[in-house]
Amino acid sequence: MDLDLLHELAQPNTTKIVLCSLDGLGGLPRPGTGKSELETARLPNLHALAARSACGLLRHVGPGITPGSGPGHLGLFGYDPLQHPVGRGVLEALGIDFHLKPGDVAARGNFCTVDGEGRITDRRAGRIATDLCIRLCERLRAITVDGVELIIEPVKEHRFVLVLRGDGLSGRLSETDPQALHVPPLPVRALDPSAASTAAAVNHFIERARGILQDAAPANMVLLRGFDRQPDIPLFPVTFRLRAAIAAYPMYRGLARLVGMDVLDTGATFADEIATLRERWCDYDFFFVHYKDTDKAGEDGDFDAKVAALERFDSHLPAILALGPDVLAVSGDHATPSILAAHGWQPVPALVSSPYCGADHVSRFTERDCAAGALGLVPAQDLMPVLMANALRFTKYGA
Amino acid sequence: MDLDLLHELAQPNTTKIVLCSLDGLGGLPRPGTGKSELETARLPNLHALAARSACGLLRHVGPGITPGSGPGHLGLFGYDPLQHPVGRGVLEALGIDFHLKPGDVAARGNFCTVDGEGRITDRRAGRIATDLCIRLCERLRAITVDGVELIIEPVKEHRFVLVLRGDGLSGRLSETDPQALHVPPLPVRALDPSAASTAAAVNHFIERARGILQDAAPANMVLLRGFDRQPDIPLFPVTFRLRAAIAAYPMYRGLARLVGMDVLDTGATFADEIATLRERWCDYDFFFVHYKDTDKAGEDGDFDAKVAALERFDSHLPAILALGPDVLAVSGDHATPSILAAHGWQPVPALVSSPYCGADHVSRFTERDCAAGALGLVPAQDLMPVLMANALRFTKYGA
Repeated sequence: MDLDLLHELAQPNTTKIVLCSLDGLGGLPRPGTGKSELETARLPNLHALAARSACGLLRHVGPGITPGSGPGHLGLFGYDPLQHPVGRGVLEALGIDFHLKPGDVAARGNFCTVDGEGRITDRRAGRIATDLCIRLCERLRAITVDGVELIIEPVKEHRFVLVLRGDGLSGRLSETDPQALHVPPLPVRALDPSAASTAAAVNHFIERARGILQDAAPANMVLLRGFDRQPDIPLFPVTFRLRAAIAAYPMYRGLARLVGMDVLDTGATFADEIATLRERWCDYDFFFVHYKDTDKAGEDGDFDAKVAALERFDSHLPAILALGPDVLAVSGDHATPSILAAHGWQPVPALVSSPYCGADHVSRFTERDCAAGALGLVPAQDLMPVLMANALRFTKYGA
Repeated sequence: MDLDLLHELAQPNTTKIVLCSLDGLGGLPRPGTGKSELETARLPNLHALAARSACGLLRHVGPGITPGSGPGHLGLFGYDPLQHPVGRGVLEALGIDFHLKPGDVAARGNFCTVDGEGRITDRRAGRIATDLCIRLCERLRAITVDGVELIIEPVKEHRFVLVLRGDGLSGRLSETDPQALHVPPLPVRALDPSAASTAAAVNHFIERARGILQDAAPANMVLLRGFDRQPDIPLFPVTFRLRAAIAAYPMYRGLARLVGMDVLDTGATFADEIATLRERWCDYDFFFVHYKDTDKAGEDGDFDAKVAALERFDSHLPAILALGPDVLAVSGDHATPSILAAHGWQPVPALVSSPYCGADHVSRFTERDCAAGALGLVPAQDLMPVLMANALRFTKYGA
């Protein structure tokens, strides 16, 4: 749906919407039992909620496409991820909760190892410890470039973020990582003429970094890729006329901030997130809450841990219901089937509960049951308009 | 689907298609019983037909979007309502069966009340009686504008239609209704330069109306909005190579005429509509029949009346089947759940019956059951191609 049209239809109301995302929710049957994580777990509260909800399956990017966390969340927020690509460098900056400013250009950096001829021998510098990454970033901060502010932030192991701040910067730059060994890093090229001065600044940074890191083997060089500016995305609170807030982890906070949601300070546990909702209940119309444990267990390939994570979520569900949201949705940003031990392309179960959600025959919140639900198999970005409608926050289209 | 492609595939045949629209068909479960209107009603004929049909759910505009009657019917006729917006003024003219000509510009008019300073105190003039509206429209007909024919038609209560007829008119005009009290009506502005002379003509009309209505409080001023020209829509009989006719109420007759269907004279009851079909059976390939009672009961929030309306429709179904259509479809233009007492965004049940419709597990024509049908959850404009195919009126695409 066109976001301008949704904005035209949006109208104020006093109703409250809670969208609960279980990271990596969708799974696959385990060979042996033939049952998925959702089918194996004891989920009395989720199944009871599904029985009085409209259920379906969400697909976040396209058929067979495995979404990263960025596109996965943009879909849940109502955006077509293919219409709103977010560069790798920007995602990396959001992932460490770095506050990008309009016009900033961000890149993903790797420390790497080069030999005496400057040819790459390890693209990840042996995955150096994060402590060392922090100290090396500190050294790189000595580099200055005329007219451009350089910001260097460590991430984890060999990874860091480079942000260029200043007037007239462009993200239309080629990558320095040749994605191959035994060749030198590439210089940055401007992909259109307006990026020439940014390319020169980055190449200057790279040459200075080479000198500074000369004695730092195995991390004696840098590779840069995914240059991009913060994308120009219509703001969520404006589009949907909702005061919107998120209680979640850094990466998801960054994405939510990108679309204009307020980020609430919250504790480290899911119970803390729910407590934060309770405290701030009157201040917002829309809450996005994020449950991380399901994805972590799936990525580890730990089927039983994912089952246990689902059961823990289920035990928290009554506390969310007790808040009395007018509309409650439960879904996820992508599948992370334990047998894949990675993000998957499989559609993700979703439920929408409200007095007007309608009914279907689904009484269990599983991949298999939701396939026959009233929501159908729909793009993830279709969820937000359905939530808005159930919150009676859309006017009629056409007389 | 692209209408040009559908036109290329369309071929003549002798088969007959009947598309039966129950206005506001879709509903929601009533709290207490947990059953929707369709689930509560005794519908032996509809359920038996569903058992031998392909069933599914239609969505007329987009996820969460509540369709007005205009977009709802365009969807059933095979058009994407978002690609073919119809302005409010045009819909209002169609609603009174006014025959718009190409180039006409129509606006929705309200009589309103203004105070001594010309500021609006009631945007609907206390909803004056329709009789008075007719007499006031008569007075406004005294107004003339050089080079433009003005046509003023009463609608109901405070509502009327203004049609401008002449050469070079444009509908790109701002509205005079400020949608607020205690401010004066706005003058009309041209939204692009080509609309300047039309704007001048409308402003001249408004100034003359102010004078004529001076003594007519509470209806002592007019507000105009929804200026638009008749949209340029590919004609239905041409696109699908079908001789097409409709038996229905004014609003729906107007929409059908807009897309080039023949409008059949018929009586006031649904039995009259079926009798008209029987009489004209040999003259057409495609009949659109419209059942109004379901929507009226839903809009009134009268669950039991909607159940009764569904049961009355069911009793007429054998008479439609007795005509022997090769393809019979039953659906609606939008949901009107009694518990909402208004149009709703919920997808609408649909069935398609023909020797080639295929089978599914659905044996009851309800929202819940149709969710698991073979048609799936599809845009309403996908129905017409399916009916054409089942009538063996499409050739193969590609060799």
